Amino acid sequence: MEPLRPIIFHPHVPSIEYIEQTLLPDTCEIRTAECISDLADAIVRLGIRGAPALGCAGASGVALSALLTKEDSFPAYLKQVRSDADILKSTRPTAVNLFYGVDFVLNAVESALTIEEAKNRAVDAAREVIRSDSRTCHAIGKTGLSVIPDGARILTHCNAGALACAEWGTALGVIRTAHEAGKKVSVFACETRPLLQGARLTTWELMRDGIDVTLITDSMAAVLMRKGKIDVVVVGADRIVSDAVFNKIGTYMHAVCAKVHNIPFYIAAPLSTFDEESSEEFVTVEERSPDEVRKVRGYATSPGDVPVWNPAFDATPVHLVSGIITEYGIFSLPGDIETIKQLKKEKNIQV
Amino acid sequence: MEPLRPIIFHPHVPSIEYIEQTLLPDTCEIRTAECISDLADAIVRLGIRGAPALGCAGASGVALSALLTKEDSFPAYLKQVRSDADILKSTRPTAVNLFYGVDFVLNAVESALTIEEAKNRAVDAAREVIRSDSRTCHAIGKTGLSVIPDGARILTHCNAGALACAEWGTALGVIRTAHEAGKKVSVFACETRPLLQGARLTTWELMRDGIDVTLITDSMAAVLMRKGKIDVVVVGADRIVSDAVFNKIGTYMHAVCAKVHNIPFYIAAPLSTFDEESSEEFVTVEERSPDEVRKVRGYATSPGDVPVWNPAFDATPVHLVSGIITEYGIFSLPGDIETIKQLKKEKNIQV
Repeated sequence: MEPLRPIIFHPHVPSIEYIEQTLLPDTCEIRTAECISDLADAIVRLGIRGAPALGCAGASGVALSALLTKEDSFPAYLKQVRSDADILKSTRPTAVNLFYGVDFVLNAVESALTIEEAKNRAVDAAREVIRSDSRTCHAIGKTGLSVIPDGARILTHCNAGALACAEWGTALGVIRTAHEAGKKVSVFACETRPLLQGARLTTWELMRDGIDVTLITDSMAAVLMRKGKIDVVVVGADRIVSDAVFNKIGTYMHAVCAKVHNIPFYIAAPLSTFDEESSEEFVTVEERSPDEVRKVRGYATSPGDVPVWNPAFDATPVHLVSGIITEYGIFSLPGDIETIKQLKKEKNIQV
Repeated sequence: MEPLRPIIFHPHVPSIEYIEQTLLPDTCEIRTAECISDLADAIVRLGIRGAPALGCAGASGVALSALLTKEDSFPAYLKQVRSDADILKSTRPTAVNLFYGVDFVLNAVESALTIEEAKNRAVDAAREVIRSDSRTCHAIGKTGLSVIPDGARILTHCNAGALACAEWGTALGVIRTAHEAGKKVSVFACETRPLLQGARLTTWELMRDGIDVTLITDSMAAVLMRKGKIDVVVVGADRIVSDAVFNKIGTYMHAVCAKVHNIPFYIAAPLSTFDEESSEEFVTVEERSPDEVRKVRGYATSPGDVPVWNPAFDATPVHLVSGIITEYGIFSLPGDIETIKQLKKEKNIQV
């Protein structure tokens, strides 16, 4: 089956094709962004979402701007591309991967001496961001093979899949690699309230690839663990600090229950997710709109004025984590912190 | 404020008024059942739900039949009432409280010698079922006062409230009694996927009574516990056996997390909930329609053909339970099992 790619950059058209994720799982519609405002709109609407995928979108967006800009003088050309880059950055002001992708391609443009050179460098840089993310996910998948036994029944939470990346995915990348290697695997996907990325996206991705998946509510995972029906938990991460892993709300509860039931609990994430100089106390968790909890896909399920607490992420302390599956091996915190720092320096890994 | 009564029996009309629970929290509509088929329809549609409330509905229903039946001969009269009783029982064939309520009033009718006497006995018996449930809930509330400190931040799951009983509630009865006694309490209500009784009913009940409530998704409870923001967990029970408490799916996960965070975890339930001669291995948990998880209030949130696991209840082993708050005191299992047997015998408690 064709790999699932949420962002495809076509330099020769030029345009960016993307999967409109708000319509999933009902419809997998491929839309085309032919200008920066199309792309910015897709990002704002969450038509494109997921940290690495936003990096790819930002990178492709700046390259699109570099190709479309019609100015004759290099300073005027550069001014226009920078302005488009600012528009893209303003769509999700806290998405560091988006910033990284935008800046990586903008730097390439700025390092050119002519408009023609800028166009070529921008295309190469955007392709490199996408290829690099894809390579990283496949490498994470290979690293993770060792923790997925044949016949494994795997619990996952939220969507750390191809849809959140250039393709393949992190947690789902590990599962895909095991499946591709001929291991029999089955997945329990938690629906992941409030935004239901597990129900909407993870199940759809895995069904598309013919991987056995069963949907459960978030509150059913602990019962499966007690019944001995989960062999391993694999989830993604939004940010890893020296003493905790930040990931979608609900991850901590699964980690506690996995520990109590002696089930290995793994994080799958690229080295760029590590912010090892920081620690949990310095991270502010975004609290989102109460309506995400009061409603389900816009449909009210509670009194409209009920007070709500709605943190987007939670922090899982590192002692509950069996290992962090990266493109360079499996690491444990706090023990491997110096190794991780060294690796990030050697490989020049940012964000 | 007027107590919240989901079932009101009016012998002199005769009719049964009930709160149409499917419309909550959007609308609190009082509907009237003027005949058995009205009532049966309300139960089938889940317009009336909650174990003790179903007992009250069954009891009131048989009394309504006893008042409405126009036969002149006692045998023909009895035949009609029995037939109506069967219709009521067929609405929810696994609801033991419904059977108990129906049979309690039917026995009263059958013990009469004349139609007039049967009508009087039926009305008295139905009122007794409702009054008894109300008394029990208030007694549970008083018992529970000792475990709710002033200023307590209480976690609850699903709806063990007035809407599930004749009034007052079990877990919410404990909270209401503490509030009424002048203790400052605040409640975190888990939304309780898949059927959202916490989001739809518990928040609505507590807001109506002016009790501080905050809605969270089920997956947020563990994080509040880790942050030190939960002082005590109080939930209801559907069935208590010698080694486990069966309650709405999600209860087990909260019990595990409460234990890990050293937070007291209480069950509030009448003695009639105990089935102390049985044990977990002999209880079959009902698995419900996959569409409850695939959809939210009828709205699809996942691929229509995704496999689903949807157990209605889970089992919390008794070692995770700090105590069971009943109308006769707080009990612990397995230690208090003989006391409970003795009490049930003494007080002639069934179902």
